[in-house]
Amino acid sequence: MSKAQMKKPLSEALKRYAPLVEAWLDRILPPEDRMPQEIHRAMRYSVFAGGKRLRPVLAIMTHRWAGGKSERIFPVASAIELIHTYSLIHDDLPAMDDDDFRRNKPTCHRVFGEAIAILAGDALSALAFEILAKYGNVRVVREVAKAIGTDGLVGGQVLDILGEGKPVSEEDVRNIHIRKTAALFAASARVGAILARSDRKTLDAITRYATNIGLAFQITDDVLDIVGNQEELGKDIGSDLQLDKATYPRAVGLKRSRQIARKLCEDAKAALPPDRDNSFFFALADFIVDRSY
Amino acid sequence: MSKAQMKKPLSEALKRYAPLVEAWLDRILPPEDRMPQEIHRAMRYSVFAGGKRLRPVLAIMTHRWAGGKSERIFPVASAIELIHTYSLIHDDLPAMDDDDFRRNKPTCHRVFGEAIAILAGDALSALAFEILAKYGNVRVVREVAKAIGTDGLVGGQVLDILGEGKPVSEEDVRNIHIRKTAALFAASARVGAILARSDRKTLDAITRYATNIGLAFQITDDVLDIVGNQEELGKDIGSDLQLDKATYPRAVGLKRSRQIARKLCEDAKAALPPDRDNSFFFALADFIVDRSY
Repeated sequence: MSKAQMKKPLSEALKRYAPLVEAWLDRILPPEDRMPQEIHRAMRYSVFAGGKRLRPVLAIMTHRWAGGKSERIFPVASAIELIHTYSLIHDDLPAMDDDDFRRNKPTCHRVFGEAIAILAGDALSALAFEILAKYGNVRVVREVAKAIGTDGLVGGQVLDILGEGKPVSEEDVRNIHIRKTAALFAASARVGAILARSDRKTLDAITRYATNIGLAFQITDDVLDIVGNQEELGKDIGSDLQLDKATYPRAVGLKRSRQIARKLCEDAKAALPPDRDNSFFFALADFIVDRSY
Repeated sequence: MSKAQMKKPLSEALKRYAPLVEAWLDRILPPEDRMPQEIHRAMRYSVFAGGKRLRPVLAIMTHRWAGGKSERIFPVASAIELIHTYSLIHDDLPAMDDDDFRRNKPTCHRVFGEAIAILAGDALSALAFEILAKYGNVRVVREVAKAIGTDGLVGGQVLDILGEGKPVSEEDVRNIHIRKTAALFAASARVGAILARSDRKTLDAITRYATNIGLAFQITDDVLDIVGNQEELGKDIGSDLQLDKATYPRAVGLKRSRQIARKLCEDAKAALPPDRDNSFFFALADFIVDRSY
């Protein structure tokens, strides 16, 4: 992974915490030789396919930033990565976006078949909630559950599928992207803050920050689907155009999409209280709009 | 629904509590006119397709039996029904059992398409955990999450699919049915007892009871798939044979399957402490093996 577009506070946080997340994921996930082996192999295949772990690291860094010192943030943050992986597996299914590659590897259903892929997603979700309840608390469970329901991830995916081939306004796409991507970014940050017993004001600030970078992240994804490099991205490019998806470039053009992403990134930074050390959050926001992968 | 095979303590409990579960399900589920409408319609279509509500009523009755008086048991029990519905929607998918009918109605994916059906299942699961965390506690969340993961429902479904067309022993099928069906029956009863702050001994007793009737339930399902009446059952019969599924009749024959189910039903009754009013639990156990639908 090229670090060129990552500023130091981000690359340092990833270097420090991503390996801890990897270790927790390995500890949480049943071993491959445990019965039924097929499902555990499929779960591990997708979880360890090489994600950047941005969401769990955002949860951990928010926890620290908000004054939290709990070790429980590590399994809780890792559970959010399980949720993220589950959503990718289901999104890639033939009945959904029908994607063959993800992170330069064949998608879960291409390797294990559709049935096992659907069930691997289901199992990752169940395991995530088990871990959230074991190491977190009921507020944390509710945050994540809300973020992936019909007001969040699933709702976004539904609108995304139904929006294929239809005329689309900026507001329509915003609505989709807020649910499909921003909701889980926001939940990741909120969970970190909640476990640090943050007050309402801090929670509101970090929610505004994470929602904005989440939206910017998805807009940048839309842009990269057109101008990106397939190998660097690790997934099929041009698939949005092929499916005539509701994207920012389709709604407002490439140039304006980039402007909006940049504006969201600056709004995100402005949402944070100026009297704290926000360097990680600034670097993450910049990376999200500047990245080429 | 014919009440002929139901003894009074069971029919009375269903008459009293099933309508409360229905009301809570209606309250919990987003309305059909809420955006995105398609997914909310699909969720409601499957939840209100006419299930017997055995699992939530088992949770409620166990709560009462264990001395609990919390109103929270109603939404918690209803969340278990959401989980049950989610598992049925995914099991019926073309990539899984490819069933066209369930409860005398076309299955979710036949009405709403595969993508929406997968997402309706995902959304029901998310909503269930949101409700379990809101009205229950972390123990309740963990119980249900464990029951639907690879040691439970998903694991059972995986073994079920992989077992198609292969030689099968009684132990193999037992292993599948314990996960696929008994685990959620056990979780339903345990959740009721946990919310009543039951001691370990009571929890163990009700777990043995519910696991036994859950296993008996699935064996009876296997038997009815061969000898049942399609209209009365509300789903395609003979589908196990068609898919060459791992079933008790295939492993040990019809007669022996019925004997095993009856034995499990008696073992279930014997697991309960004799000094309590067990009439509902006895009637439920009898119904489960005597039913023709």
